[in-house]
Amino acid sequence: MKRRLFLKGAGLGAAAGIASPAIAQSTPTVTWRLASSYPKSLETLYGACTHLSEAVAGVTDGKFKIQVFAAGEIVPALQVADAVTNGTVEMGHSGSYFYIGKDTAFAFGTVIPWGPNSRQMQAWLFHAGGLELLNEFYAKFNIYNLPAGNTGAQMGGWFRKEIKSAADLQGLKMRIGGLGGNVLQKMGVVPQQLGAGDIYPALERGVLDAVEFVGPYDDEKLGFARVAPYYYYPGFWDGCAELSFFINLEKWNNLPPTYQKVLKTCAMAAGHDMQAKYDALNPPALKRLIAGGAQLRPLPNDILKASYKHTKDLYAEMSAANPAFKKIYDHLWAFQQDSTRYWQISDLSFDLMSATALQQRWQDG
Amino acid sequence: MKRRLFLKGAGLGAAAGIASPAIAQSTPTVTWRLASSYPKSLETLYGACTHLSEAVAGVTDGKFKIQVFAAGEIVPALQVADAVTNGTVEMGHSGSYFYIGKDTAFAFGTVIPWGPNSRQMQAWLFHAGGLELLNEFYAKFNIYNLPAGNTGAQMGGWFRKEIKSAADLQGLKMRIGGLGGNVLQKMGVVPQQLGAGDIYPALERGVLDAVEFVGPYDDEKLGFARVAPYYYYPGFWDGCAELSFFINLEKWNNLPPTYQKVLKTCAMAAGHDMQAKYDALNPPALKRLIAGGAQLRPLPNDILKASYKHTKDLYAEMSAANPAFKKIYDHLWAFQQDSTRYWQISDLSFDLMSATALQQRWQDG
Repeated sequence: MKRRLFLKGAGLGAAAGIASPAIAQSTPTVTWRLASSYPKSLETLYGACTHLSEAVAGVTDGKFKIQVFAAGEIVPALQVADAVTNGTVEMGHSGSYFYIGKDTAFAFGTVIPWGPNSRQMQAWLFHAGGLELLNEFYAKFNIYNLPAGNTGAQMGGWFRKEIKSAADLQGLKMRIGGLGGNVLQKMGVVPQQLGAGDIYPALERGVLDAVEFVGPYDDEKLGFARVAPYYYYPGFWDGCAELSFFINLEKWNNLPPTYQKVLKTCAMAAGHDMQAKYDALNPPALKRLIAGGAQLRPLPNDILKASYKHTKDLYAEMSAANPAFKKIYDHLWAFQQDSTRYWQISDLSFDLMSATALQQRWQDG
Repeated sequence: MKRRLFLKGAGLGAAAGIASPAIAQSTPTVTWRLASSYPKSLETLYGACTHLSEAVAGVTDGKFKIQVFAAGEIVPALQVADAVTNGTVEMGHSGSYFYIGKDTAFAFGTVIPWGPNSRQMQAWLFHAGGLELLNEFYAKFNIYNLPAGNTGAQMGGWFRKEIKSAADLQGLKMRIGGLGGNVLQKMGVVPQQLGAGDIYPALERGVLDAVEFVGPYDDEKLGFARVAPYYYYPGFWDGCAELSFFINLEKWNNLPPTYQKVLKTCAMAAGHDMQAKYDALNPPALKRLIAGGAQLRPLPNDILKASYKHTKDLYAEMSAANPAFKKIYDHLWAFQQDSTRYWQISDLSFDLMSATALQQRWQDG
């Protein structure tokens, strides 16, 4: 494809009778606009956009420019997918699962409850056919997707009161996104959608009883610990969360192959960098939160167990209602079962021993 | 720096009285040779080199070419670092810990026993100052290092006989690399260094009692299960293993800034891709190995516990003997303790619940 473009470029130059360098065809000056669903203050998530933009400019010697816009600057936070579909912007940065209202299969691009962990998600996307399946689905919305990095396993969120059993979830008003809200609804929770800035005041007034957001580093900035001090784990609905670079499909198809390669490579690097950044920033943030009064608690086992059953029921319902959901779910779940069985004896086994050794101070024994 | 190069380029063109495009200075045609420590048949490890080479050519429109050579083609497998130091090749691909004979601090670029897991390693390298520390150390050997991807937690290896307690390790002849060999030596094992091709015959003849290599996908190719069927986990000495792209320091410093950015970005992408590839290929390989007769066994707890104590003793000895070792070890260990405490409630907690749910089939309950 690159070769054909090269020949075509040379041919055009020859026809016009000018010494047009073929190279100008493959690496022209291009400027794109990228609208993010996140504010600049969340430099973890938003940072993936600036990393991408700098990398793309860096490797193309400044010829491919990507201008990054924060949530609301040119597109409202949760309308990024539409702006890409319509070509208002060439590119967006968002959580795919914000758009499950359009089609439940939008959930998979981020993660589903009791789904894969971060590395399993990368394996499924890049080496098990996951990304091809997602892009086949996104094409219906005129979108081409490049994975944009992961947060790792998220926390279960902040609660005003202690949760001792599944009964304590009844009637609880909780800010939660994606299919996690559907699962918790089956368990009596009243899920709410609220923008980041509205959560704290709602918790303070008691209009909201709980909130799940991301993890220690991002959560700390929003100050939840002061009004909802019980910090639960694990966030079974977000065993990881992958972000997405959504690209308008025509814009993608019309991009010179060299720049397609640039975007793929730089998006993968930006994604790798974001996970590493989260993994470096979260541990000290958790220490600070605990020092500041946050009460760390594991989610009760009956909640975890019941949530798993409700999750599987939800997937059966959504698979019956939506063939696009079923197709991706079946593929992902087959992958995840094998992967988790291996994980159990490899990384999980090592991580468990490593944490046990640290906790029990084996070196002193 | 890029700007200065641009101006210099333009100035030269003007002085010579020709319309030399400044761009030729920042993205010249460059060809480098990259020597790997691995054979082509290990397409996981070796694949990171071809991924890098294709990405670099792809984003530079073919102007920056990296020719990849397998182990032994132009440099013997375990002399890659020397070849880079001496400038025989511009670039190498190797396991840093092959070179602990030169200096024990070479261990950290790969991993140390009871060290970080794969994501912790990325966080330490890219966002906690680890890579800066490593490159400060490598500079003494005229090397600039770019991380080249990780294998994830490795298996504990193949044993001809079952290992029921630490006593069974006495006098055991085992092929093992890096500091893992030093730790096992303290436990009575006789560590051996053997090239990949020599391991199988040595096991078959009984000259060797055990071998640790990587994980199911790579191990399967070498056929160990037929002669040493007991497959142990976890490989506490390789909680992860990072590969390295070693670059001759002068060659790196003389590379145009655009190409430095290209290499950094493409190496990060190649690294991300390799971990995803391992995570996709290992689970089905383990299933095949078990179907073929491999006997999966956890390492006995007394071995794990004793190994931890011996590991800490080893680090105390090496820190006392080598200030370069101490400097990097202290930094890494401070990072790892915080990280593991957080990991315990985040990813480890989720992974444990996820594996438990799968095993106990919560959805049927």
